Amino acid sequence: MTGTLPAPSIQAALSSLAGWTTQPAVRDAHRLDRSGYDPGTGPDAVVFAESAADVSAVLAHAHATRTPVVVRGAGTGLSGGAVAGEGSIVLDLTRMDRIVEISPEDELAVVEPGVITAHLDAAAAAHGLRYAPDPASLAISTIGGNIATNAGGLRCAKYGVTRDSVLGLDVVLADGRRLATGRRTVKGVAGYDLTSLFVGSEGTLGVIVGATVRLRPVPVRTATLAAWFPDFEGAAAAAAAITAARLQPAVAELLDAACLEAIGADRDGAFLLVQTDGFGADAEIDAVREVVAPLAGRVDLATDPDEAEALLATRRAALPALERLGRVLVEDVAVPRSRLPEAVRAITAISRRSGIRIATMAHAGDGNLHPILVLDPGHEIDERVWATAGEVFTTALELGGTLTGEHGVGLLKRRWLRDELGDDVLDLQYAVKAVFDPHHVLNPGKAL
Amino acid sequence: MTGTLPAPSIQAALSSLAGWTTQPAVRDAHRLDRSGYDPGTGPDAVVFAESAADVSAVLAHAHATRTPVVVRGAGTGLSGGAVAGEGSIVLDLTRMDRIVEISPEDELAVVEPGVITAHLDAAAAAHGLRYAPDPASLAISTIGGNIATNAGGLRCAKYGVTRDSVLGLDVVLADGRRLATGRRTVKGVAGYDLTSLFVGSEGTLGVIVGATVRLRPVPVRTATLAAWFPDFEGAAAAAAAITAARLQPAVAELLDAACLEAIGADRDGAFLLVQTDGFGADAEIDAVREVVAPLAGRVDLATDPDEAEALLATRRAALPALERLGRVLVEDVAVPRSRLPEAVRAITAISRRSGIRIATMAHAGDGNLHPILVLDPGHEIDERVWATAGEVFTTALELGGTLTGEHGVGLLKRRWLRDELGDDVLDLQYAVKAVFDPHHVLNPGKAL
Ligand SMILES: Cc1cc2nc3c(=O)[nH]c(=O)nc-3n(C[C@H](O)[C@H](O)[C@H](O)COP(=O)(O)OP(=O)(O)OC[C@H]3O[C@@H](n4cnc5c(N)ncnc54)[C@H](O)[C@@H]3O)c2cc1C
Ligand SMILES: Cc1cc2nc3c(=O)[nH]c(=O)nc-3n(C[C@H](O)[C@H](O)[C@H](O)COP(=O)(O)OP(=O)(O)OC[C@H]3O[C@@H](n4cnc5c(N)ncnc54)[C@H](O)[C@@H]3O)c2cc1C
Repeated sequence: MTGTLPAPSIQAALSSLAGWTTQPAVRDAHRLDRSGYDPGTGPDAVVFAESAADVSAVLAHAHATRTPVVVRGAGTGLSGGAVAGEGSIVLDLTRMDRIVEISPEDELAVVEPGVITAHLDAAAAAHGLRYAPDPASLAISTIGGNIATNAGGLRCAKYGVTRDSVLGLDVVLADGRRLATGRRTVKGVAGYDLTSLFVGSEGTLGVIVGATVRLRPVPVRTATLAAWFPDFEGAAAAAAAITAARLQPAVAELLDAACLEAIGADRDGAFLLVQTDGFGADAEIDAVREVVAPLAGRVDLATDPDEAEALLATRRAALPALERLGRVLVEDVAVPRSRLPEAVRAITAISRRSGIRIATMAHAGDGNLHPILVLDPGHEIDERVWATAGEVFTTALELGGTLTGEHGVGLLKRRWLRDELGDDVLDLQYAVKAVFDPHHVLNPGKAL
Repeated sequence: MTGTLPAPSIQAALSSLAGWTTQPAVRDAHRLDRSGYDPGTGPDAVVFAESAADVSAVLAHAHATRTPVVVRGAGTGLSGGAVAGEGSIVLDLTRMDRIVEISPEDELAVVEPGVITAHLDAAAAAHGLRYAPDPASLAISTIGGNIATNAGGLRCAKYGVTRDSVLGLDVVLADGRRLATGRRTVKGVAGYDLTSLFVGSEGTLGVIVGATVRLRPVPVRTATLAAWFPDFEGAAAAAAAITAARLQPAVAELLDAACLEAIGADRDGAFLLVQTDGFGADAEIDAVREVVAPLAGRVDLATDPDEAEALLATRRAALPALERLGRVLVEDVAVPRSRLPEAVRAITAISRRSGIRIATMAHAGDGNLHPILVLDPGHEIDERVWATAGEVFTTALELGGTLTGEHGVGLLKRRWLRDELGDDVLDLQYAVKAVFDPHHVLNPGKAL
């Protein structure tokens, strides 16, 4: 891309802010996220906000001049939510990265939005606590971005998604007004739950400038098991058997044959990783093993942290290994757990029909699948690719599932959203959006 | 109360519904909930809806004629949310009481709103599952009412409040349109989280005609401990010590001296009940005991279910015992856990100053206090009583807490709501309300 120059009115209104820039290199770097979608052009300006007051100033200006604002955390999003084109201002929050407070008594933290997720987790660890939501991007994504996408992670099988860890938010509305939602208490029902409305709203309802989040005790013990199966259906059946035995692992992850092949694992078929935690971790993993072993080709039980790390490494290696094979499009459908085998069978068939390699990893504990379309390096994400992705989405909807379990709708999944939500619900969502952002300046064309 | 006759237009529009009645005795019984607030008059009519179509018919009529509708579950609410006066129609949902589906594979249930909470729990138990939210009213309240108030319970220290168990809702909007929010999957981020918006909305945004709720495994084991302390501060300190040791009980309940006196317990001071669960329940209760014992006067550990039941009985006996002493006003403030001792100290001082006996029980795990004002039998809840309750609310707000942890704002706490939320947030909430119910027919004058 090359930039047109920003409008003089933006210059005048915002150039007093320290973090304001129109440098082409910065604008260029701020046009993309990790979705692989390129808007072709870039934003007119980037503001590195250093305070809520900076955010208010930018929004008040944008509101008055009807200028689109793209809020941006670390730009690790996979659905194009932070992608920014010509005519827009990017509001980058990475400099607002203070951990304001950690309260071990109340098991909560107050943070600015630009805090890197792993930094909060590390700070909490000093008190025997942790920030439970652990997206695989936790070393590079921000809490603000996690909240705006309602990010999930491995541990959310037991500890819930980001929403379940957010107690309250400090938000700047589209017109620059600042307000607080929620509270410092674990419980509270005064007024409608605006906190949950902002969680997952992908920068379209307001800018999160602060958050009060729950911290939870680091489990006293974890136990880890890995099992290999001849095929994905066998692995999914084992996951279902764990559920049927009424066990509650903290982590339950599946990899299919295409993932194992990409990693170069010494076994093919399919892989299931299970972790239990808490005072009963060992007894619970034994119960898991009893259920899984009769169905598996091989079961490894980790008895120390290093061995557990080695087993987890297999899961972690999958996405990087696929990325080395070519250009990837990471999808994120979810289905009711019981439909996992059907979903993977359908995805395999879609892959075969389309000739596009699709490798699938899944959070078995919550039915969230990441079918990863692997294209030749440099291959365009063209209509044929989207048609294939579209078949995956349709499959998820037919199985009673959703387009997106945790990555958000962003730019890339909008055209399927009406299929999932229906006209009435979507209209209602637009009406809610209009209450918060009447001039549609916040991330227009995203999420809805 | 005695009723004026319902307007002829209502008669004409709704008398075709099977469950429609204007019988004075029925109208009379439907004017109150369990808050103790009497509107003086009663509703013009009561409709016992038998289907979502009945609900749509009532609302379409109400919308067109601007007739207030009070949605009603079992009427066990404690804040006046279901109270109905002249000019309104009560929409009673208790006949919509079918458990439509229990899916052990997906660990979820689909229910109609009038299902009694305990019935769902019992049906789930047949599959080794349970419905986690357990308000003390679970034997008499409905799932619809629980969702509309975002009810809490003893187990929510570990398993969350009602919101955390609701996956999706089937809702009839004010104009009679029916729509579905959320999904059958555990995760999903397509569109704004309307499900959470309806949860806790106290019948003001739409009528819940169906719900898809999570079920969770019944823990393999529970362990229970009861401890007695010289005073409430000691008991609260013990609860704080459990938190500081990074333990995570499923239940942690406190009773003050006034509660123990009302029960006729053989000990005075204060009482702490702790329950752990899961594979590590026994090891975890041992860890709890190690922390608590040095601070307590006496500790009892239950080693079998009967003993555990006996300990739990002390907690359960408190409210009925207080109700036998006089007329009670049950409050429901919440504070950050670390402020529990201060809250109880302040409440004791308020009681002393006002001369009104206040007994306090608390969910220690989440800082939710129920200060119970005990008045002489037949005593009016007059301005002096409200002034005292107001002091309790102000105390909670000053300590960083909320007016209501789980009972809702209803009619009785509205005048303090602006103090908690502030003008901007409250205005925003009214604007959201207007999107869903432009003519303010759903429970007008409640919740906001
Ligand atoms: C290798 C890799 C692994 C990943 N693994 C996971 C995973 O396991 N689970 C998962 O859920 N996601 C995962 N993701 C996706 C991504 O990391 C998450 O969506 C993350 O939450 C985005 O955070 P961010 O700070 O990068 O936000 P951005 O990408 O900068 O923004 C994401 C969206 O949030 C909005 N936004 C950002 N900050 C704010 C704010 N303060 N206020 C309002 N709106 C805001 C943006 O406008 C945009 O719509 C992964 C990504 C990568 C590259
Ligand atoms: C002895 C006792 C103990 C209690 N213990 C607890 C406790 O531990 N925790 C707790 O949270 N509460 C408790 N409560 C309060 C009360 O039981 C809860 O608020 C319960 O959720 C109300 O359910 P209900 O069916 O009686 O609803 P109702 O009282 O009939 O209605 C409550 C509110 O919900 C609305 N509503 C009801 N059904 C619907 C629907 N289907 N759609 C839309 N709106 C609807 C009503 O309009 C009203 O605003 C207790 C009450 C009693 C009497």
